[in-house]
Amino acid sequence: MSSVIGDKIKLSIFGESHGEAIGCVIDGLPAGVELDMDKIYKDMSRRAPGNDKFATPRIEKDVPKILSGVIDNVTTGAPLAMIIENTNTKSADYGNIMSVPRPSHSDYPAFVKYNGFNDVRGGGHFSGRLTAPLVFAGAVAKQILAQKGVKVAAHIKQIGSVKDDSFDFCNVDDELISKLNDSRFALINDEVEDVMKNEIEKYRLDLNSVGGMIECVAVGMPVGVGGNMFDTVEGKLANILFGVPAVKGVQFGLGFDFASQNGADVNDGYRMNGDKVELITNNNGGVIGGMTNGAPIILSVAIKPTPSIAKPQDSVNLQTMSDEKLVVKGRHDPCIVPRAVPVIEGAVALGLLDLMM
Amino acid sequence: MSSVIGDKIKLSIFGESHGEAIGCVIDGLPAGVELDMDKIYKDMSRRAPGNDKFATPRIEKDVPKILSGVIDNVTTGAPLAMIIENTNTKSADYGNIMSVPRPSHSDYPAFVKYNGFNDVRGGGHFSGRLTAPLVFAGAVAKQILAQKGVKVAAHIKQIGSVKDDSFDFCNVDDELISKLNDSRFALINDEVEDVMKNEIEKYRLDLNSVGGMIECVAVGMPVGVGGNMFDTVEGKLANILFGVPAVKGVQFGLGFDFASQNGADVNDGYRMNGDKVELITNNNGGVIGGMTNGAPIILSVAIKPTPSIAKPQDSVNLQTMSDEKLVVKGRHDPCIVPRAVPVIEGAVALGLLDLMM
Amino acid sequence: MSSVIGDKIKLSIFGESHGEAIGCVIDGLPAGVELDMDKIYKDMSRRAPGNDKFATPRIEKDVPKILSGVIDNVTTGAPLAMIIENTNTKSADYGNIMSVPRPSHSDYPAFVKYNGFNDVRGGGHFSGRLTAPLVFAGAVAKQILAQKGVKVAAHIKQIGSVKDDSFDFCNVDDELISKLNDSRFALINDEVEDVMKNEIEKYRLDLNSVGGMIECVAVGMPVGVGGNMFDTVEGKLANILFGVPAVKGVQFGLGFDFASQNGADVNDGYRMNGDKVELITNNNGGVIGGMTNGAPIILSVAIKPTPSIAKPQDSVNLQTMSDEKLVVKGRHDPCIVPRAVPVIEGAVALGLLDLMM
Amino acid sequence: MSSVIGDKIKLSIFGESHGEAIGCVIDGLPAGVELDMDKIYKDMSRRAPGNDKFATPRIEKDVPKILSGVIDNVTTGAPLAMIIENTNTKSADYGNIMSVPRPSHSDYPAFVKYNGFNDVRGGGHFSGRLTAPLVFAGAVAKQILAQKGVKVAAHIKQIGSVKDDSFDFCNVDDELISKLNDSRFALINDEVEDVMKNEIEKYRLDLNSVGGMIECVAVGMPVGVGGNMFDTVEGKLANILFGVPAVKGVQFGLGFDFASQNGADVNDGYRMNGDKVELITNNNGGVIGGMTNGAPIILSVAIKPTPSIAKPQDSVNLQTMSDEKLVVKGRHDPCIVPRAVPVIEGAVALGLLDLMM
Repeated sequence: MSSVIGDKIKLSIFGESHGEAIGCVIDGLPAGVELDMDKIYKDMSRRAPGNDKFATPRIEKDVPKILSGVIDNVTTGAPLAMIIENTNTKSADYGNIMSVPRPSHSDYPAFVKYNGFNDVRGGGHFSGRLTAPLVFAGAVAKQILAQKGVKVAAHIKQIGSVKDDSFDFCNVDDELISKLNDSRFALINDEVEDVMKNEIEKYRLDLNSVGGMIECVAVGMPVGVGGNMFDTVEGKLANILFGVPAVKGVQFGLGFDFASQNGADVNDGYRMNGDKVELITNNNGGVIGGMTNGAPIILSVAIKPTPSIAKPQDSVNLQTMSDEKLVVKGRHDPCIVPRAVPVIEGAVALGLLDLMM
Repeated sequence: MSSVIGDKIKLSIFGESHGEAIGCVIDGLPAGVELDMDKIYKDMSRRAPGNDKFATPRIEKDVPKILSGVIDNVTTGAPLAMIIENTNTKSADYGNIMSVPRPSHSDYPAFVKYNGFNDVRGGGHFSGRLTAPLVFAGAVAKQILAQKGVKVAAHIKQIGSVKDDSFDFCNVDDELISKLNDSRFALINDEVEDVMKNEIEKYRLDLNSVGGMIECVAVGMPVGVGGNMFDTVEGKLANILFGVPAVKGVQFGLGFDFASQNGADVNDGYRMNGDKVELITNNNGGVIGGMTNGAPIILSVAIKPTPSIAKPQDSVNLQTMSDEKLVVKGRHDPCIVPRAVPVIEGAVALGLLDLMM
Repeated sequence: MSSVIGDKIKLSIFGESHGEAIGCVIDGLPAGVELDMDKIYKDMSRRAPGNDKFATPRIEKDVPKILSGVIDNVTTGAPLAMIIENTNTKSADYGNIMSVPRPSHSDYPAFVKYNGFNDVRGGGHFSGRLTAPLVFAGAVAKQILAQKGVKVAAHIKQIGSVKDDSFDFCNVDDELISKLNDSRFALINDEVEDVMKNEIEKYRLDLNSVGGMIECVAVGMPVGVGGNMFDTVEGKLANILFGVPAVKGVQFGLGFDFASQNGADVNDGYRMNGDKVELITNNNGGVIGGMTNGAPIILSVAIKPTPSIAKPQDSVNLQTMSDEKLVVKGRHDPCIVPRAVPVIEGAVALGLLDLMM
Repeated sequence: MSSVIGDKIKLSIFGESHGEAIGCVIDGLPAGVELDMDKIYKDMSRRAPGNDKFATPRIEKDVPKILSGVIDNVTTGAPLAMIIENTNTKSADYGNIMSVPRPSHSDYPAFVKYNGFNDVRGGGHFSGRLTAPLVFAGAVAKQILAQKGVKVAAHIKQIGSVKDDSFDFCNVDDELISKLNDSRFALINDEVEDVMKNEIEKYRLDLNSVGGMIECVAVGMPVGVGGNMFDTVEGKLANILFGVPAVKGVQFGLGFDFASQNGADVNDGYRMNGDKVELITNNNGGVIGGMTNGAPIILSVAIKPTPSIAKPQDSVNLQTMSDEKLVVKGRHDPCIVPRAVPVIEGAVALGLLDLMM
């Protein structure tokens, strides 16, 4: 088990849902980068719960406290350590004895793996709360990328049966990126918002949850970043993205739609645009041979429905070793997709920065 | 760029399509493992071209020659080095000057990245031929896994518009695994074979190519392998799988189908089976919280259509910097999905073994 | 630049001498290990300044605060994060503008490397204070090693012209190990203590500093840990040990004395002791072929004199680019060797644990 | 066990003394570097045995055969694989059953570690012969370094009781570097050669062996390479250097002589030289705070006497588990120090290149 990732920029994440604090150490950042803390807070706030009735009511202030690596908002080149103190944790809801594992959560394999010593309160280190440091690190990465002309944005592509428009694979303008970066319910087509929120509300009222899909774009990447065979852009990003709880699929460009396609229709040809080579189409999502090709990087991830639902579910009691029905207590997001948008942005930004350093 | 992967078992792959030899070094293998060379040759032969009219006519004998790490077919614990000498390479078809990059191939970003110094003959180090050492390493990994009770098998899930049945997520028996491991056109439902081959033939006759999907299973994994946040089974396997040329998507269990699902329907509950905990369903594909949960690991990958087609395509001349139509010469697979099956098996086996060591 | 080390157990250290806090994250610890916090505090106190007149008067409480990875003093298997808040830092002594680099300190190359953005107050991230988290991590490692029957201890082998006895390479008993682990001025031969302290006092009164040597032993290691070629016990330990500021040499067994020796005299022969193989001599310091051989691991490190001395020294002003005499202000240890003993113990324990996991 | 090293440039070494072939894969080399193969052969020939009566009579041609990563002597950026076929191996001298381990060799711990499955013929993967690929990789690294203005050279500092002069720590000129790079018995002071060779001859005639010391310099390194805490120049180089069989100590600058020194005498002050900062002395061997400071990097390594001697030695029979005298058969170098010089050069060059990339 490792919560460390990265080659040139190493991110180490720590903490448990109901522990003293969560946080991260980012090692390998360049010196002299001025950080806009407001932008970092904004991303963290986009991920934070309690924004509206669709999100979990637990109020996390999620105020990051920087312990090292920054002086007067400028990076020093030394490891940047950040903590978020846990202030509002009602452990009484949980206790640290795992008796009945929640379906589709980490509970059961973690119990086996750690012989029952893992922190089970709120999922412990496996909690979605641990994405807060990832958003922090991603927000730092986004600022460094921006200085290199690279911008990253994501939106809700689908929730249940409701879909947003897709990115234009060949052309994502700055205006759209800014809009998405500023949004708490990030959509390309705003007219979808109400119907999508209604979809979520429907599952919430039914004590149920719903899955979705997030699409992410990165524009401005130079040609030739990443590489064959095991430093591919796809593989590096997927490795981080699958670290985000609930992500169950990662695809680039047409992704799984390639399965029913033919080469003549989907091959991405080239043409000259003035003195520059450009792609005519971008079905490969900006990556061929594992390397960036100059077109926008387009990827999407599948998010499974929040496993925590208030309906009775089949489980077993690990102390008595007998079947037992479980009703997950506490209140949980019926859909984590909106809050996961800045997490996916952050994960992608972090991966791309590591590849570019 | 790195062609090295793995934590405890490190695989280093080298070679170019038309170079002296391709091969690999596998570092960290346990000592004392008896290797069944016939099984290794069989997997390599399943990947090798020239099996039938659907595969490229270039005859590669693909005979692996072991240079170190094995005595009398038993591993010594020292690095296992293997080479395959390239014997039948007609470089005249290519030359080493990149003028017109093939659409959807690595040619253009590699040209930019390596300033024109990369070996372009047959794709050089980016060639699909480099999956031969991966199959070799995977075949070794499969034998070590088998000793631990783990078996890996894959099949063609889809080619173009034709689909095979899916695995039963909860129950994949040894018989099916053996059948798939022995097959050169691996299908669960053999009745699909003719129609699927006709689909390929249709694209071949049209000088076109077609994509597909491969589904892979691993049974027998113990509970609790892998871990949050960045050593997840999903992330580790995806990192390797995206190293296989043409893979553009990786999903676990329901994968992207989760997007339209709700928790009540897809959460994987538990029940006692005698004195053992078992999963009632396996929509998560055997992995929750990044760890194995005891159910079969089920994943699928999207394979894009072979980019090399004999139709004229839009490209540019990188020497004259002008538009130029390209017709890819040589003869190429209209569909690489059947040959990619042992590659996916091997990549998954290698990743699982590294996680289990 | 990286302050992360380790393969299976990854240690990430952060903080600056005069920053908000210093600390570390230890990733990969086994679950279920009960930590004796008093033993950890004791090691940290052995390293802490202010123990006596020989050490720097700055009072650091060095109280480690565990943020994650431990419940009721038992490890959970999740990353263990620890911070030490900096409470008593007089930055006025320094300021963050590097004008005159201190000879033999990191100041000058760090200024060049970080373009002047690094934290220079008290040496910033390069401060010897950053060994406190290393001692913490080492103290945790020592407890896990002890459960595996491995014990680590170090002593002051030399300060200036005064030498302690050496370990008996073949036989270091538990009593000696306990004594050294408990000592703030760790010596094998206590009769040396006064003369050695007088040696330090002599340099202190002269506004000077003095170097020394520390010898470390690890007993109880099983045979065959570590390996050729680049996972050698020697290489792994040296990599960590050279991370301790002021260490300028690392040797195993006879080390540099091998240069004038012949094989017949120093080869370590074997003999049976009952049904066990044992070494007759241990000139290799417990490591041959990069692997442990069952004899005690014996190594020693060279410590250079503290560069901070109150005598005028030759330097340059990096703002005016002219020669300038420098007198280092503040009060500094005339000899850091005694306080470095638990640091070396910790570094060795951490390295051995990583190799054994 | 791992024979892989490096962060940006990964070297994977494989092979056994009496196996099919030995070799290496170098991953991460820049594209477009023209390699002077003659210089590479020269370094390999300096390491090769049979140069004179002081070296082992086994004739190894040591002709490296490049399999990939190079076209027309220019690197392509793809992994460079190289093999040396073993042609003249008399396995009859050994057999692959370990009965009586040679003192101070890897035999005994390897037997335990690999349960007797390791290749024991000639030391197998632990043989000094495996330094041939390291010399190859180092020779490649030296050429890339040279293009960056960095030169590396080493000499025999001591054999037994005979010493060569030391480098002038502050000033090593190109002429001396060239002379050492060209030498098969590399000395600063040529007048020492005869007496040093006589020293070796004395031990050879006595069926004994003798140790020594090698000193290495790297000039032209820019300021600020490497870093605190665990990417130090010292730690990185030591990790590789201890991978060279027989190396038992590594020190930088004054190294162990620091132990008896005081700060006023050995601190390295600065002065302006025109508009450049320069060091007045270089007792730290070009590295402070783990980073290069612009002065030449000076390090030395201790080499233990060749363990293989023809005198009867104490050992045990691992099959019968009883004491047994051993006389090592075959003919072996009485002193490997002269042949180890290009190995140390190569190891240092490789480590520095990895740090600079």
